[in-house]
Amino acid sequence: MLGLRRDAALVIDDGRIVWLGSAVDVPAADERWDCGGACVLPGFVDSHAHLVFAGDRSAEFAARMAGQQYTAGGIATTVTATRAASDEVLRANVARLVAELVRSGSTTFEIKSGYGLTVDDEARSLRIASDFTDETTFLGAHVVPSGIDRADYVDLVTGPMLTACAPHARWADVFCDRGAFDAAESRAVLAAARSAGLVPRVHANQLQHGPGVAVAVEMGAASADHCTHLSDADVDLLAGSDTVATLLPGAEFSTRSPYPDARRLLDAGVTVALATDCNPGTSFTTSMPLCIALAVREMRMTVAEAVRAATAGGASALQRDDVGRLFVGGPADLVVLDAPSYIHLAYRPGVDLIRQVWRGGRLVRDG
Amino acid sequence: MLGLRRDAALVIDDGRIVWLGSAVDVPAADERWDCGGACVLPGFVDSHAHLVFAGDRSAEFAARMAGQQYTAGGIATTVTATRAASDEVLRANVARLVAELVRSGSTTFEIKSGYGLTVDDEARSLRIASDFTDETTFLGAHVVPSGIDRADYVDLVTGPMLTACAPHARWADVFCDRGAFDAAESRAVLAAARSAGLVPRVHANQLQHGPGVAVAVEMGAASADHCTHLSDADVDLLAGSDTVATLLPGAEFSTRSPYPDARRLLDAGVTVALATDCNPGTSFTTSMPLCIALAVREMRMTVAEAVRAATAGGASALQRDDVGRLFVGGPADLVVLDAPSYIHLAYRPGVDLIRQVWRGGRLVRDG
Repeated sequence: MLGLRRDAALVIDDGRIVWLGSAVDVPAADERWDCGGACVLPGFVDSHAHLVFAGDRSAEFAARMAGQQYTAGGIATTVTATRAASDEVLRANVARLVAELVRSGSTTFEIKSGYGLTVDDEARSLRIASDFTDETTFLGAHVVPSGIDRADYVDLVTGPMLTACAPHARWADVFCDRGAFDAAESRAVLAAARSAGLVPRVHANQLQHGPGVAVAVEMGAASADHCTHLSDADVDLLAGSDTVATLLPGAEFSTRSPYPDARRLLDAGVTVALATDCNPGTSFTTSMPLCIALAVREMRMTVAEAVRAATAGGASALQRDDVGRLFVGGPADLVVLDAPSYIHLAYRPGVDLIRQVWRGGRLVRDG
Repeated sequence: MLGLRRDAALVIDDGRIVWLGSAVDVPAADERWDCGGACVLPGFVDSHAHLVFAGDRSAEFAARMAGQQYTAGGIATTVTATRAASDEVLRANVARLVAELVRSGSTTFEIKSGYGLTVDDEARSLRIASDFTDETTFLGAHVVPSGIDRADYVDLVTGPMLTACAPHARWADVFCDRGAFDAAESRAVLAAARSAGLVPRVHANQLQHGPGVAVAVEMGAASADHCTHLSDADVDLLAGSDTVATLLPGAEFSTRSPYPDARRLLDAGVTVALATDCNPGTSFTTSMPLCIALAVREMRMTVAEAVRAATAGGASALQRDDVGRLFVGGPADLVVLDAPSYIHLAYRPGVDLIRQVWRGGRLVRDG
């Protein structure tokens, strides 16, 4: 499952892994690091994160957890705060969350827009996101903002907003669910995005069973994200496609919702990824180790399956074959754990087990 | 609930809080720290931790999570490894876990014996524990070790083992549950311990409904710990007593067991504490923030109730009125969060939000 090696070593040169093998055979090198028997993993690949926003929704969270109604507006609250924020504030917020992500072992991460929802605010979000990652996703189709007719908004997202955003994005995403966009609208958004050179991904089947997964597979999406409520037909569609099922247990944790059934997907042969869904409303975590622990506790993944989903699985969800695994020629994106085994990521929940993070051969966290 | 103050300041002298009030009124001081609007809390009080052991049970954990039977022996595995370990190894293991606890914001913590289970090994465990905390607990009555008749073992625990251990312990604990000790045995252990000057606490009602809580209340225990399976009569007994209900959600997380119903206890007026139960078999976490997040997600506590249970609640479980809250004259045991509100401890699960830890006025973690 994981291709474990014991007593292993690797050599890094110019940001890449240039040798990988048994420690007794390691060639000479200018500098040596002894990991002292610690577990070394590929850096985590977080394929789903909403990092460009302002404001905080802690009061909404506390009220929801206390079982109280809280009608302050959900995503709209964040949209208002994001539109009102300066570029500097937004950039500083992203930088802070990216630093957290990297400290917790993520070396590749996606960033979505989706809290601007005007042509200028979406383009601005993606320009800022582009400063931090190549994996940028245009999510104009997050919700229909207030004050605009939904057909007009879909026209905007598939027209001028797409034109403004496409130069700054690799991906296009749509929230195909109750209260967001239906199947026809989602198809229209993704078809237009594809014509503009963006590759589709879909927020699918989070809140209830719906057409999200079917639309994702039909449109050739790289990933269907959430997959909380699936029919047998959805599972079959995913298993027969190249669309990855990206599970986001931080969202179920923070909304006290039922978790997706990862076992069912894995047993059907679906490729599964884990990601944080970091966002201020429903999953304000940057911790892939927490996602791994939750996947094991709540979604019936083995620890090995969860670690694979958080590394190679995330890479598949981003259609990347260069990250999420360690191989000669690949980037030196590594996590050194404060533990002898990857199992400890789930066995020691809540404990910061990341001792070192290497990104492109550079030590970006040490202790 | 929490006695929140905004725009507050405090003055520390000689390890104690000597002034507490509004920042605009703060008296002159030699050194000043600006927390920049961050939330400041009393250090967490972890009233239940098993830190003196050797070995690791990650393979057992992974097998359990994969739904496999794993019969390598549970507690007995750790007892064997602990007996075989040198004092130096045991002390280094405790030091490492204590460092983790402190880094994650715990400034007061209890340490139990219970993996020695011979006169010498229990006394050794408590001597080592005493180097790290005054809150030491004799848990000779953890399980009946192999190779000894259970009546003989109870005689040992209430006789020579107690004599050897009492000088190094403040508390005595018994695991009153299926596979461990029954009500009569538990009473005998706690009565003898009380005669030797130790104050009782009980592992109660973790694995099934049983007599643990009733025994705890009857014996005047400071705390009944776990409380996963309670009858209405148990809740009434706790509500009518000074015995704290200490909930240990890390154990339910790591054994995939149903969580205790904190709401039911709180609504009945029971004092509730949260603790880590840090141990290598069933809850290998040192993170009180994780326990808070789990208590909110899984046990229907509000965030304020969970934070109170992790501070003042833990202090009550240790019959301490000097820790778990901030007041003039009390020790300067503080946590400064990387967040504007205590809510973030649950709102941002898995994220290391501890910016500073002050213990007895000394900055023991900074960044």
